[in-house]
Amino acid sequence: MSNVYIIGAGEAKYGELWDRSLREIAVEAGLKAVESAGIRTKDLGAIYMGNSLGGDISMQEHLSALMSDHAGIASEYVPSIRVETSTASGASAFREACLGIRSGEFDIAMVGGAEKMTELYGNEMIDITSSIIDREWEAFTGATPAALAALSARRYMSDFNVQKDVLAQISVNDHANASLNENAHFRNRITIDQALGATPIAEPLNLMDCAPLSDGASSLILASEKYVREHGVEGVRVMGSAMSQGAFALHSRESLYTVEPTRIASEKALKQAGLSLKDISMVEIHDSYSIYGLMALEDLGFAKKGKARELIENGIGLTGNLPVNPSGGLKAKGFPYGASGVGQIVEAYYQLKNKAGKRQIKDVKYAMTHSQAGSGAASVVHILGVE
Amino acid sequence: MSNVYIIGAGEAKYGELWDRSLREIAVEAGLKAVESAGIRTKDLGAIYMGNSLGGDISMQEHLSALMSDHAGIASEYVPSIRVETSTASGASAFREACLGIRSGEFDIAMVGGAEKMTELYGNEMIDITSSIIDREWEAFTGATPAALAALSARRYMSDFNVQKDVLAQISVNDHANASLNENAHFRNRITIDQALGATPIAEPLNLMDCAPLSDGASSLILASEKYVREHGVEGVRVMGSAMSQGAFALHSRESLYTVEPTRIASEKALKQAGLSLKDISMVEIHDSYSIYGLMALEDLGFAKKGKARELIENGIGLTGNLPVNPSGGLKAKGFPYGASGVGQIVEAYYQLKNKAGKRQIKDVKYAMTHSQAGSGAASVVHILGVE
Repeated sequence: MSNVYIIGAGEAKYGELWDRSLREIAVEAGLKAVESAGIRTKDLGAIYMGNSLGGDISMQEHLSALMSDHAGIASEYVPSIRVETSTASGASAFREACLGIRSGEFDIAMVGGAEKMTELYGNEMIDITSSIIDREWEAFTGATPAALAALSARRYMSDFNVQKDVLAQISVNDHANASLNENAHFRNRITIDQALGATPIAEPLNLMDCAPLSDGASSLILASEKYVREHGVEGVRVMGSAMSQGAFALHSRESLYTVEPTRIASEKALKQAGLSLKDISMVEIHDSYSIYGLMALEDLGFAKKGKARELIENGIGLTGNLPVNPSGGLKAKGFPYGASGVGQIVEAYYQLKNKAGKRQIKDVKYAMTHSQAGSGAASVVHILGVE
Repeated sequence: MSNVYIIGAGEAKYGELWDRSLREIAVEAGLKAVESAGIRTKDLGAIYMGNSLGGDISMQEHLSALMSDHAGIASEYVPSIRVETSTASGASAFREACLGIRSGEFDIAMVGGAEKMTELYGNEMIDITSSIIDREWEAFTGATPAALAALSARRYMSDFNVQKDVLAQISVNDHANASLNENAHFRNRITIDQALGATPIAEPLNLMDCAPLSDGASSLILASEKYVREHGVEGVRVMGSAMSQGAFALHSRESLYTVEPTRIASEKALKQAGLSLKDISMVEIHDSYSIYGLMALEDLGFAKKGKARELIENGIGLTGNLPVNPSGGLKAKGFPYGASGVGQIVEAYYQLKNKAGKRQIKDVKYAMTHSQAGSGAASVVHILGVE
């Protein structure tokens, strides 16, 4: 299986972008990535677009073609598809692009992730975000993504005697890192007390446990080993790329706080990379809710079940034992559903290329990214490295 | 690049399935395909699900996970994604599955296409189907998919002095073939006069020029060359698989009746297969509107622009010079958006395996399938063969 490399990245700022359209931000990210990679759009062999809710929110499907057209790429007649696995859409699009390059069908691919979450708001938006959970068996009974996360949190806190401040530290760390990220939605630091005292959303989770509805777009350019060799490009290598999908509805799972697909994808990705967890310099985790951050750290293997607290105590900041979410994470960099998975890899790329500016972590050699679909129906794990 | 084979197929009947849910029909098709391939679900390395409007119609995203779970496959933790390229979603999912197998990542993949179009109706449905065209630049100005097809038809008829009866013959042929297909939505034959005298939809197109909104699901099992050799399975080989995407909005294209992506994809697929058009025994074309059927026959290369009429006169029936849409096509087998592209390949598979029953074409050696996104933003062409 031939190697795949990331050779460029671009992003549109995450946030509430009331004056910008979905196509506008997607095109900005894509063209920045093309420029950063030093390629021309006619070099592209395929475009993979991660998007979760474009049809529901903006009543616009076939976003891959829309984006390609508005980026001026349509005249190249490049194949393009949209990949959708709800909140893991971006990471899934990235993985498919890797498989496409490995197949030998093309040498260069663009991966885009874009989401415009702020076209709608209020109850309508709660209903729409519930499209990512089981509509008939969960949403129709009144469950929302936040309510499902709250169930997991309550059970986790009870079984492991964990208090709310442990969850809050995930969000405090995100905001601290996002304060150094120009593309982040929220750049304010928050204290533990502020995190604990925020407006309740779904007990025990409050506003500071819940990632925001952000607009945003991220993009990456991938290239084959053949291309980087011929062009003398120093890319970041995709060392491991794994996905796993389990039960869709939360009630069908054996445990309310174990996402088995995360465990399986992590093991597979590490095996592909020929690495163990202690080789990982930093990790971007899918903390759409703070509890999912704790669960991810455990399911990825960094801590035993119920013990993420100890990992956090040992330091998850930029200079900690295991830097977590240097980008600011879903809580503070922002959470444009289908873009997040790509955005995480953009951060890993910058860190590995030593281009992360004020939030640069020292000596990053291998980075892991983790993207989760909804309440944990599926997970996608990537390991990126420089060698 | 290693070869990919189709080793099994399954379908749920197309139609207005008021008593059946999206998950039900998708699971039926998928499990029938698994049974037909003689594999077990634990053999699956990946699941690719084509779906266009599940989020908009049923408010359900992440259908790949929902389907996998309800088919009892979730316990295998198989990676699954949804691929969306509007009405070409099924064909795009099939193509991605081929690339996945060629990458060496897995040996067996399930491709599913499913759509439940009849959950909604009337104006709401017209609005939703307009999600596949440019919402801001086409749909907001009042254009619908039917209106865009009518523009193409009017210009085509005027420029080439073609009368309505030529368009009608595409639909008459579809209904004749569908009368022999147990899974077809409409099994009634229609006459030219009936086709010409139907209720107007968007002049010059009437009801018999427009494919129906159907529910339906189709599924295929793909396997690597390694698998078919080791298991002595006689599959149908995927000889060519090409996609091309151009301008999204109709007004951005150079011609109102040329779908450049179809032309490009056809050329590429033939080149991959090492075949020319005269080798093709049958073709399944994307006639969501009768005019698109004519355009496809020309853009695929079977006739010069404006000359599909002659091809039709030479016979497109099951015993004609070039059998077109033996399945019944989108007009009569039915048009469940994201399922159609898979359904076309299911038909090619049956014909190539000599299992098409009463509609079996004699001596089918190579089959071509053509799936189009919306008004022609993208096209996917496959060439299947037995050797």
